[in-house]
Amino acid sequence: MSVMAESASMPTRKTILHQLRWRYATKGFDPELKVSEEDWETLMNAAILAPSSWGLQPFKMVVVTDTEMKKRLRPACNNQPQITDCSHLVIFAASKELTEEHIDGFIDLTAKTREMELEELEDFRKLLHDFRKKLETNGTALTWSQRQSYISLGFLLSTSALMGIDACPMEGFQPEKVDEILGLEGYRSTALCALGYRTGNDWLVGLKKVRFPPEEMVISF
Amino acid sequence: MSVMAESASMPTRKTILHQLRWRYATKGFDPELKVSEEDWETLMNAAILAPSSWGLQPFKMVVVTDTEMKKRLRPACNNQPQITDCSHLVIFAASKELTEEHIDGFIDLTAKTREMELEELEDFRKLLHDFRKKLETNGTALTWSQRQSYISLGFLLSTSALMGIDACPMEGFQPEKVDEILGLEGYRSTALCALGYRTGNDWLVGLKKVRFPPEEMVISF
Repeated sequence: MSVMAESASMPTRKTILHQLRWRYATKGFDPELKVSEEDWETLMNAAILAPSSWGLQPFKMVVVTDTEMKKRLRPACNNQPQITDCSHLVIFAASKELTEEHIDGFIDLTAKTREMELEELEDFRKLLHDFRKKLETNGTALTWSQRQSYISLGFLLSTSALMGIDACPMEGFQPEKVDEILGLEGYRSTALCALGYRTGNDWLVGLKKVRFPPEEMVISF
Repeated sequence: MSVMAESASMPTRKTILHQLRWRYATKGFDPELKVSEEDWETLMNAAILAPSSWGLQPFKMVVVTDTEMKKRLRPACNNQPQITDCSHLVIFAASKELTEEHIDGFIDLTAKTREMELEELEDFRKLLHDFRKKLETNGTALTWSQRQSYISLGFLLSTSALMGIDACPMEGFQPEKVDEILGLEGYRSTALCALGYRTGNDWLVGLKKVRFPPEEMVISF
């Protein structure tokens, strides 16, 4: 179909589902096996390419490969071994507020990327500032930015599965402590994602994946 | 590497990034072009395979292909043309509360899937009930379930890109009205995702993708 993407090496439906079934919340990472720089670049770019509300990307990704920093973080992360055993630990940190500065930076970036004049983007800027005020009034800036970071987390997890790289997403940690250790200001650690390669020895690896079936998950009209 | 997934047809890094760059928030869908049943099954299963907190999958996916239902929804969705022009409209509806019933259903499913006795899962059940009470006390059940649904939204969007299927995620709609039209009880419409094929004529299609660069998005330790 001419409107479809052109690519000879697109994965088949079977490969996609095989890889998404192959992935699991890896508890046992082999500490000797590291994600290559090239693979990390791909995963990072996949996460950055995820869409977000208005395109604002209201979060940061903190990536930790340093052994000492992993050790410092582990007690704040329910002492889970994957924190120190993984290759790359990614922390999605969502912005606590949508700031005027962030919006203006985004408008500047849009003008630069699309070779537009700032004047052409004035209506869009106003729209975003109205949106910002709505979040502020409703006190929903953080929950909004956290949701956006989860689309990106989804891209990271699905892409790593497609690349045969193991991952473990985690919400069980103390956000304030993690923020403090990382020196985050204005951002709240929301989800962690350990990346690396499974030992194949942990208790979860042999277990069947538990998912509610389509009959329970999907309502059709 | 022996621990890696075995699959001859896994996409290359280049293909993955090419497809994620190819995708954009499609405004103009060709109403004549439909996502095949087989492709929809793959996308739906990819979304269901997304991980969630404790594996609880606290949301529903509503899929609308019926023309009349799309027409009814459109006014509650800022009258956006992609609501009626797309092939499949997916609504992610997050559970307003994590109920005891949901947890018990999940424990039953786990026992059945993994051929375990319910007694073996009693500690896990208690853990989940404690977690449920925490969400209830903090009033965070809905924001928690909404975040989980966004991982699944991420899987849907990245998988559709990998398959050359267009998508448009949307937060701009009136959730209460959409809930009412769909007859949802206990669930809150949180994100929409239109699926189909681009006409290639809309104003966004030729524009460069705007993304903050790694230097701004990523903090490394």
